[in-house]
Amino acid sequence: MADQTDITHMRRAVALAALGLGTTSPNPVVGCVIVDAAGEPAGEGFHEYAGGPHAEVNALRAAGDRARGGTAYVTLEPCDHTGRTGPCSQALIEAGVARVVLAVADPNPVASGGADRLRRHGVRVETGVLAEEAGDGNAAWLTWTRLGRPYVTWKFAATLDGRSAAEDGTSKWITSPEARADVHRLRAEHDAILAGIGTVLADDPQLTVRPPRGRPPLRVVLDSDGRTPPHARVLDSAAPTLIAVAEGTEISHPDVVRLPRADGGLDLTALLAELSRRQVVSLLIEGGPVVAGSFLRAGLVDRVVGYLAPALLGSGPAALGPAGVPTITETHRLTFDEISPIGPDLRLVARPAPPKETRVHGNR
Amino acid sequence: MADQTDITHMRRAVALAALGLGTTSPNPVVGCVIVDAAGEPAGEGFHEYAGGPHAEVNALRAAGDRARGGTAYVTLEPCDHTGRTGPCSQALIEAGVARVVLAVADPNPVASGGADRLRRHGVRVETGVLAEEAGDGNAAWLTWTRLGRPYVTWKFAATLDGRSAAEDGTSKWITSPEARADVHRLRAEHDAILAGIGTVLADDPQLTVRPPRGRPPLRVVLDSDGRTPPHARVLDSAAPTLIAVAEGTEISHPDVVRLPRADGGLDLTALLAELSRRQVVSLLIEGGPVVAGSFLRAGLVDRVVGYLAPALLGSGPAALGPAGVPTITETHRLTFDEISPIGPDLRLVARPAPPKETRVHGNR
Ligand SMILES: NC(=O)c1ccc[n+]([C@@H]2O[C@H](COP(=O)([O-])OP(=O)(O)OC[C@H]3O[C@@H](n4cnc5c(N)ncnc54)[C@H](OP(=O)(O)O)[C@@H]3O)[C@@H](O)[C@H]2O)c1
Ligand SMILES: NC(=O)c1ccc[n+]([C@@H]2O[C@H](COP(=O)([O-])OP(=O)(O)OC[C@H]3O[C@@H](n4cnc5c(N)ncnc54)[C@H](OP(=O)(O)O)[C@@H]3O)[C@@H](O)[C@H]2O)c1
Repeated sequence: MADQTDITHMRRAVALAALGLGTTSPNPVVGCVIVDAAGEPAGEGFHEYAGGPHAEVNALRAAGDRARGGTAYVTLEPCDHTGRTGPCSQALIEAGVARVVLAVADPNPVASGGADRLRRHGVRVETGVLAEEAGDGNAAWLTWTRLGRPYVTWKFAATLDGRSAAEDGTSKWITSPEARADVHRLRAEHDAILAGIGTVLADDPQLTVRPPRGRPPLRVVLDSDGRTPPHARVLDSAAPTLIAVAEGTEISHPDVVRLPRADGGLDLTALLAELSRRQVVSLLIEGGPVVAGSFLRAGLVDRVVGYLAPALLGSGPAALGPAGVPTITETHRLTFDEISPIGPDLRLVARPAPPKETRVHGNR
Repeated sequence: MADQTDITHMRRAVALAALGLGTTSPNPVVGCVIVDAAGEPAGEGFHEYAGGPHAEVNALRAAGDRARGGTAYVTLEPCDHTGRTGPCSQALIEAGVARVVLAVADPNPVASGGADRLRRHGVRVETGVLAEEAGDGNAAWLTWTRLGRPYVTWKFAATLDGRSAAEDGTSKWITSPEARADVHRLRAEHDAILAGIGTVLADDPQLTVRPPRGRPPLRVVLDSDGRTPPHARVLDSAAPTLIAVAEGTEISHPDVVRLPRADGGLDLTALLAELSRRQVVSLLIEGGPVVAGSFLRAGLVDRVVGYLAPALLGSGPAALGPAGVPTITETHRLTFDEISPIGPDLRLVARPAPPKETRVHGNR
């Protein structure tokens, strides 16, 4: 049975896993801690980048002979298939690990089976330890794997009264430099960033990570009728850009996806399926209000990150457009995950989750 | 010179003062700590209710003979006049206190002079110790005394996207029972609660403290043309109600004030002058959006208390109406004073203050 010591080691493994956020996609983040037969920490590791060694391999390498008879703590069930690297289940067996403690089972049919193989080779396996924390850390990848669509985060910046620009359309700047820097950090964690054509025409945003770090996220524009101007900054060479247009729309751009029209614009489910195929595990919606409303109405927002400035406008465009709520009982209800000051502003993270108590295994 | 020990005692005095919030109006809140000649705490007290003994008198009573040769820490300059009670400066002198440490000087010309009298009698006096904290605790009374108008707090409840009702007008309930209970606590701290006729007609609010505690706040309705229905709940017998109408408006109600019309409705400066005369030291604006916008536009909001629910509406009435901001550079800028979870919601307190660093003596 898992005890307090197991939980402590798994917490460390979860923290290690998080170090891979932003560089492992389309792989999950994974952390691993190995303790020797005497219970002393012997090695640790995490999955650092897609194509690189898995967490278990890094940890086993660090532990060397001390892994024999010891325990491995892994945030995700060790893979059982030979992909870019060999199966981790086999590596753990060969190193002579006596016991493996897991947080989350691998929902991926290609890779799962690791726990079974370990058991068949006489390794004691325990699962579900700190599953919620580990699952939260892998929320994007688990959503992509289980639902076949990217994990969708809607980011907005607004005043306390929910406005994102003044009456005359000016909006530079509502939030602080600290908040804006945090948006770039948020972008860097995502595989793709999406904006509607309304935002592209109004603000001409570049939608890049500045300063650049790692592989730049794919830029996606929702543009039914192909109105993106050829000199729009979103089409510059700083990152690849996909333009989503309606079926039958002519547009000269190297990367276009044609989607069915649906209520309120392009079919978002079809869009997400396409992005999923392109191994976009995490998608950041950066506006505008109309696009955000559509995603919410379709039930396709997994997380909301809001930057609220201590400011009041009283008029001007709202941060969120119609989201399919005719009456109060149909409000999109969220729960706050994080509330933190950022510079003079407030950063809020909320998810359309039931209260934490009812969550199981980090799967919402 | 004030040292760390002085600050510690004054901090306690400030905490004592706060115990009087809501019951001392139109007097300030005041706390007092007395330490004996050896530096040992000898007695403490605070001003508990208007007409009751002052903080110094309560503390001297508790200290008895031990006050002789000791130090008194008082959050506000001791009064020097004989009002409902005798001058506190005299009481400190008679008790033989050797040193008096003060936070905030009394700006009230009738009562001030206490520090001078103490000095003339050979008492060492130091001022300005923890002045900002003490001033913040007395913000309402200091505003009333210095500016001749009540301290105005605007309270609102909204979703994350700044809406206070859904498209069809339904709004019960956006915030949690915890947040709504806190609103009653907030009401109880105020001398008067104000709403516009729009809110009275739309919601028929009672605007009382429930459960009742202490003297009920005066209810104030802004109603240029005297449209408040005779059976409106705001006119029930639970608390007194003042209806503000335009000059020349006929209305049958026992307590009416006739005010000049101004841009956007009744003249708010004239209203506040009338309330000030009635010894309304603190006023809570409970809406609606139009009234809140008017107060903001007039620069008459001293504090904003917002309850934000982790919810999104995307349509429906905004929490704040036009507030005179045509362009982003004229945004009403605030700073957050408090950010705290309340039940599942978020409670924010913000003030249109310059950054704290530039504040002097708690006077903003
Ligand atoms: N506060 C913030 O964080 C923030 C962030 C970004 C932007 N903004 C502001 O938002 C404003 C522009 O926003 P907006 O609401 O007008 O436009 P938008 O949301 O950026 O784009 C909306 C347009 O996207 C296209 N679209 C295609 N498929 C769609 C679908 N399924 N759902 C929704 N839209 C779809 C539609 O145009 P077609 O039919 O032509 O394709 C639609 O009119 C700007 O003023 C900008 O400053 C604010
Ligand atoms: N979210 C919240 O916390 C909250 C709180 C309260 C209400 N509400 C909502 O607000 C809605 C009603 O608000 P509303 O904006 O229509 O009305 P309101 O702000 O309650 O009242 C506005 C009316 O007050 C009168 N008034 C007189 N002098 C004024 C002045 N100097 N400035 C502004 N108004 C003055 C005007 O009517 P006359 O010219 O006839 O005098 C004006 O139309 C309701 O739907 C209610 O549910 C929300």
